[in-house]
Amino acid sequence: MSQGKLLYAQSGGVTAVINATACAVIETARAAKVPVLAARNGILGALREELIDTTKESRSAIAALRHTPGGAFGSCRYKLKSLEQDRARYERLIEVFRAHDIRMFLYNGGNDSADTTLKLAQVSRELGYPLRVVGVPKTVDNDLAVTDCCPGFGSVAKYTAVAVAEASLDVESMYDTSTKVFILEVMGRHAGWIAAAAGLAARADGDPPHLILFPEVPFDEAGFLARVQATVERVGYCTVVASEGLKNRDGAFLSEAGTRDAFGHAQLGGVAPYLADLVRDRLGYKYHWALPDYLQRSARHLASRTDVEQAYAVGKAAVEYALAGHSGVMPVIVRTSDTPYRWKIEPAPLAKIANREKKLPKSFIRRDGYGITAAARRYLEPLIRGEAPPPYAKDGLPAYVRLKNVAVPRKLAQGFAG
Amino acid sequence: MSQGKLLYAQSGGVTAVINATACAVIETARAAKVPVLAARNGILGALREELIDTTKESRSAIAALRHTPGGAFGSCRYKLKSLEQDRARYERLIEVFRAHDIRMFLYNGGNDSADTTLKLAQVSRELGYPLRVVGVPKTVDNDLAVTDCCPGFGSVAKYTAVAVAEASLDVESMYDTSTKVFILEVMGRHAGWIAAAAGLAARADGDPPHLILFPEVPFDEAGFLARVQATVERVGYCTVVASEGLKNRDGAFLSEAGTRDAFGHAQLGGVAPYLADLVRDRLGYKYHWALPDYLQRSARHLASRTDVEQAYAVGKAAVEYALAGHSGVMPVIVRTSDTPYRWKIEPAPLAKIANREKKLPKSFIRRDGYGITAAARRYLEPLIRGEAPPPYAKDGLPAYVRLKNVAVPRKLAQGFAG
Repeated sequence: MSQGKLLYAQSGGVTAVINATACAVIETARAAKVPVLAARNGILGALREELIDTTKESRSAIAALRHTPGGAFGSCRYKLKSLEQDRARYERLIEVFRAHDIRMFLYNGGNDSADTTLKLAQVSRELGYPLRVVGVPKTVDNDLAVTDCCPGFGSVAKYTAVAVAEASLDVESMYDTSTKVFILEVMGRHAGWIAAAAGLAARADGDPPHLILFPEVPFDEAGFLARVQATVERVGYCTVVASEGLKNRDGAFLSEAGTRDAFGHAQLGGVAPYLADLVRDRLGYKYHWALPDYLQRSARHLASRTDVEQAYAVGKAAVEYALAGHSGVMPVIVRTSDTPYRWKIEPAPLAKIANREKKLPKSFIRRDGYGITAAARRYLEPLIRGEAPPPYAKDGLPAYVRLKNVAVPRKLAQGFAG
Repeated sequence: MSQGKLLYAQSGGVTAVINATACAVIETARAAKVPVLAARNGILGALREELIDTTKESRSAIAALRHTPGGAFGSCRYKLKSLEQDRARYERLIEVFRAHDIRMFLYNGGNDSADTTLKLAQVSRELGYPLRVVGVPKTVDNDLAVTDCCPGFGSVAKYTAVAVAEASLDVESMYDTSTKVFILEVMGRHAGWIAAAAGLAARADGDPPHLILFPEVPFDEAGFLARVQATVERVGYCTVVASEGLKNRDGAFLSEAGTRDAFGHAQLGGVAPYLADLVRDRLGYKYHWALPDYLQRSARHLASRTDVEQAYAVGKAAVEYALAGHSGVMPVIVRTSDTPYRWKIEPAPLAKIANREKKLPKSFIRRDGYGITAAARRYLEPLIRGEAPPPYAKDGLPAYVRLKNVAVPRKLAQGFAG
């Protein structure tokens, strides 16, 4: 019996290294002579029967995915609901898979995707369609259960730590007559993993960042202002890193508590400008703030080599598991040693990962709430180690690849109702 | 007669490569056996007699300045006024120079610094104190007259073009179900040089950035919104680059026309959130925006090699000019060929540079006002060519140097009144 084809789909917010995983999936499957299809725009492409034939791509184009950010086949924010509510959609997926002889499905995403993958395994069993489903971890949020860390996180962590170090050198040169408070807003709506990574920039006591504001610690306005003032008086300036998910004591996001625009709507986004206004109005210091937004999660030019290697390793393992007949699993990263840092890949049941969320441990946040502990540093530091810059073209820009993304001809008469 | 000492000072906003100029100044002077002092926090350090003895720094520490962002000796925003208004300050500077046998003064800055340097030359002549003054160009704004480009600009230009390319790959992967409009706000209060550099990311027609908003082109709200909509309908998403200096038809900054904070103050900074609110309210598209602020001008990790080489070359030439007896000049970059790109350094009279401002030529802005021309690309592209990454430490962070900055003992009884 033929092994059939393998379908690969990217899900949710993309990262600087999700294409390194795609590269591994395609290279590993090619070596095993298994044709790989990719879903255009994630699971939606599978529902719509919009499939891409990756066998039309050259070996060098696939190799270049390893250093190209974004999602090469498109991703989506689209959550399938429970089997009861969304049975028709799950059945549609199986119908598409059957039409294209897809016997292996690899879904590259976070918690929600793990859940979808599990349900798909269940429906395929019910319908008597032989399908091996394997989840592949990915998220800058680093909040997947079981795995020690998530591909995508190490690179945004490195970007953030480097940004803090560089911008602080700038502020340090100028504080005597200019900016005294610099505020960097980082991603992390629900957990402070990225904010914590900023702490890696402080190699010695007193180094920036001087204050980290975690979503896990309710914002204390008076305490914050007192610490900013004390830092400026002691060091001359103060670098603050604030998580976008920072909340007040009532649990409301600070970014939504702030200003109204010309139309009277609450202005979205912007813990940093909110804090900057506070600093100006209460302390009178000159300030600057930065909000890198997508720049932080797409900065492939500054990727962590550890992260790139792990992103590749989980893609490779996912194909190997599927080929070996595994289903309902996800390759996870297991840390076997801190010093020297060592890790390996193991399969873990998707049921243990789906719909769970790994929070930043309390032991990683300094007792005063404004910094990271030695335990956090021990965990985080290996994840930003090593560089893996992309090749650059002669024009000074990275040589990122754009695939041809040739469509597979449709086989089903019926489209996807939506 | 001894040649005396050379004093070097950094002025105004720092860049990713101003320390490469400092490196060149010290290495070139050391080779000529001339001791280099540095002023702490720019010209203020000279006024306050806060001088740093760079001879106390190791050869490797000075070499590491070449890859370290920020201003190693501190800079300042402090403008000396006219000779009539500020004569006492100019005389104080000469007094400090005389006390420390400083016979050469190198001032590393922009238009204002060139003016200060010129006036100092005049006062020293009047007072019969032999002083050679040489300006050294530096500014991310790229607005100095005479020189073809300014050290510091090429690196922020490269950062901006790479950021647009990377973030757009992210948006392109997700627009089907998520963000359709991405807005990047870049520096450039008075001229659109940095905004123009973002245009380098578009190698082919239709590539992002799709719209550039220059400070030179009054903002046309209806025209902007129509183009955003047309781009989303044609391409699927729209990347917008907006200069912080964008103005409305009345000449007012858009960033100040927007929202008010909880205290009723105009919220400063933020053309990007202003435009994002417009897009949401008028077009209903999901948007994201980024404001990298200091990250863009301190990103030494992504410096342009051309820029680093030019920053070094002007520092070296400045010392050579001073040693050769020149005064009242600045080394400028002369472009001798576009293809292949070739440049050389020449001395230019400070009088031709002081207090002038080089605007973005009209011929660099596309007729429709939303993009750059082929002439702009021809000028800009060589400036971002080549990479010059810093060395990284084992912990995954760049190995930036922090100097000892040993103070020179004071010789004057009197302090600086302020």
